Amino acid sequence: MKATVVTIGDEILIGQIIDTNSAFIAKSLDKIGIDIHEVISISDSREHILETLKRLQNQVDLVILTGGLGPTKDDVTKKTLCEYFEDQLIVDEKVLAHVTELIEGFYKRPISQMNKDQALVPSKAEVLFNKVGTAPGMWLKKENTVFVSLPGVPYEMQHLIENGVVPKVIEEYKRPFIIHKTILTYGQGESLVAERIENWENNLPEFIKLAYLPSPGRVRLRMSARGTNEQLLQKAIEENTDSLSKIIGDIIVGYDENETLEVILGRLLTKNKMTISTAESCTGGKIAQLMTSIPGSSSYFKGSIVSYATEVKAEVLKVPQALIDTYSVVSREVAIEMALGVQKLLKTDYAIATTGNAGPEKGDSPAELGTVFIALATPYPAPDNIICEEFNFGQPREKVIDRTVNKAFGMLQNEILKIR
Amino acid sequence: MKATVVTIGDEILIGQIIDTNSAFIAKSLDKIGIDIHEVISISDSREHILETLKRLQNQVDLVILTGGLGPTKDDVTKKTLCEYFEDQLIVDEKVLAHVTELIEGFYKRPISQMNKDQALVPSKAEVLFNKVGTAPGMWLKKENTVFVSLPGVPYEMQHLIENGVVPKVIEEYKRPFIIHKTILTYGQGESLVAERIENWENNLPEFIKLAYLPSPGRVRLRMSARGTNEQLLQKAIEENTDSLSKIIGDIIVGYDENETLEVILGRLLTKNKMTISTAESCTGGKIAQLMTSIPGSSSYFKGSIVSYATEVKAEVLKVPQALIDTYSVVSREVAIEMALGVQKLLKTDYAIATTGNAGPEKGDSPAELGTVFIALATPYPAPDNIICEEFNFGQPREKVIDRTVNKAFGMLQNEILKIR
Repeated sequence: MKATVVTIGDEILIGQIIDTNSAFIAKSLDKIGIDIHEVISISDSREHILETLKRLQNQVDLVILTGGLGPTKDDVTKKTLCEYFEDQLIVDEKVLAHVTELIEGFYKRPISQMNKDQALVPSKAEVLFNKVGTAPGMWLKKENTVFVSLPGVPYEMQHLIENGVVPKVIEEYKRPFIIHKTILTYGQGESLVAERIENWENNLPEFIKLAYLPSPGRVRLRMSARGTNEQLLQKAIEENTDSLSKIIGDIIVGYDENETLEVILGRLLTKNKMTISTAESCTGGKIAQLMTSIPGSSSYFKGSIVSYATEVKAEVLKVPQALIDTYSVVSREVAIEMALGVQKLLKTDYAIATTGNAGPEKGDSPAELGTVFIALATPYPAPDNIICEEFNFGQPREKVIDRTVNKAFGMLQNEILKIR
Repeated sequence: MKATVVTIGDEILIGQIIDTNSAFIAKSLDKIGIDIHEVISISDSREHILETLKRLQNQVDLVILTGGLGPTKDDVTKKTLCEYFEDQLIVDEKVLAHVTELIEGFYKRPISQMNKDQALVPSKAEVLFNKVGTAPGMWLKKENTVFVSLPGVPYEMQHLIENGVVPKVIEEYKRPFIIHKTILTYGQGESLVAERIENWENNLPEFIKLAYLPSPGRVRLRMSARGTNEQLLQKAIEENTDSLSKIIGDIIVGYDENETLEVILGRLLTKNKMTISTAESCTGGKIAQLMTSIPGSSSYFKGSIVSYATEVKAEVLKVPQALIDTYSVVSREVAIEMALGVQKLLKTDYAIATTGNAGPEKGDSPAELGTVFIALATPYPAPDNIICEEFNFGQPREKVIDRTVNKAFGMLQNEILKIR
């Protein structure tokens, strides 16, 4: 079964927003064995929508459209669907009752004509009821293709994919199995990894496809197996994961598809019953935020002192003022004291500290733009109690912050991996 | 001039990664007056790439392809381009010298055949030299369409768009002007805003298109004017912005296209010479991270205590243990003490505190999943020195965190706006 995802809205075409809906839809459909043929973004225009519907007609089995269902004039999807299906809009009474309740009951406003129009749907559409918003989903079939139109608001779209589209597809269509397995490696580049596993890759069975997903410092390898015999696929994936581990086990750090460094670190800290805190200047709390984005992080992450102002470094983290005066806030000496300071204050095994000139302007230090010091305090006795590295990540600001976070996680990971 | 952006890579089609490249490219091209017709993601397959190149041939003037240029077997873009252009790969000596220097000089490894192959380009291609990576950009023309192939690594792609594609397009093509103006409103929903400005919207000139971009608590209105006379467009945009301000001036909070709440707050705090700090539990440092993502934020943001563990609330923020024992960490009483605690510790005018059960499991408190308390300490004497609100944001975890951040910014904004 083949599907194409179509996002309708000029805001994507002018680059004003990043399309996150498509990834969610693609992932949800992939999970149930649907092959995503294309992901497309088109403009809020009648002509462009019609042209796209015609092109996709009978090319794929399922077309998921999002966007253009709002109450305002720039939203033309519903009218255009009517035109394509030679249909007309009728009031869906259940949707109208829901919209009325939402506006009058929840928002305490009189319902307007614009609100009421949200309950209009093409008469040929099967309505996918939207419990969490005003625009319903619509399921329309023409010849060999089903067209599903969903609102573009992410949580409404997600609700309808999970509770409307996916259950209906599972019930009505036969699909093959698709199994993905991601192997996360750390510390070697894409081409070096490719050279090491060349023989292994050449011996993969036809039904397994391998993809390389490189990002700074790490490469994710993804095997995708597709076929009708789930057990066979599962077995082949397992065997090939085992044989791969024998070749590059030294750089494999995880296997979960969604596994980020913060997830891996969380697992390593939990396993070793270790705790961590951070003292963040140039990263402004981003390390803390990523660590706490993981459910269960409260068992190892105790907290952070975001010491953005120099006086917070001195007063809360107890970095000696003389050190700041002598070396400036962006220095090895200050980074080390920040890490030791927060480690002591929050009583944790490890502590990460960051201080740097993220730019675009120089701050309270004469250090070059892009200069960053990362210190890591450990539970070991001196001189192993502290590690500090200096980097220059250049510009712009966001890059400096992101690289600092990534390097800090890398330094912590290297340290914790030594325990095992 | 019309362009289509094509991203090549299965990782997008299975939803493993979110495509951020396309938004960057679209924004860069839009800025120089190029009309983005479509944004497409397709698979790493020869057939699909060929089919897409054929479809776009002469439909648009410019096709930007990203991805599929890596050294590994799953990358087929270069070979497929050769096939489409009836061409062959030749070694580009300048690129080869650069790749050699990068691998042997920077990475200190002997160069492999796989590395050397990065310097192969179709003989008909004009090479866009990639200073920051190994895969060069390629500019190929067939009939009325230029096809540009770029690497998919974001910073390499960005470098080539900014230093290769955009300057070349500006030099070689005549383009119309496109001017966007975004008006950021806060506090009223999309349909209410639409009703208030209906007359104004109906009177917009033909060449100005209006779009509504709703997100929780706010609606961005975007006018896009397109034409050949830049002055005329500019004037029309200004006049219509003025007339709009007269109608909904009470809810307009900013005008910058990229203006987020943290940018607006930064401007308001700077204008009023006020400082802020945060004490974050359930938001885990996200408010601090967003605030410090703004250049110049050090003039108003002093720092944050991310008090994830209960003992940090007690020991660093000095929340009385008795209060925690009586009301639990997720309570109005604790939120208030956290805000007052960090305000005092970091000596700031305002202080935001968050505490809640973000889920998916209940933590150190019996409060319902999704329950959040947000407290805001102000510079005013009691009882106006503190505001605290309770919310339930349901689940999942990410939604709870994001809504908490948004509400906290909203509460702060409402308070600061009272000053003017």
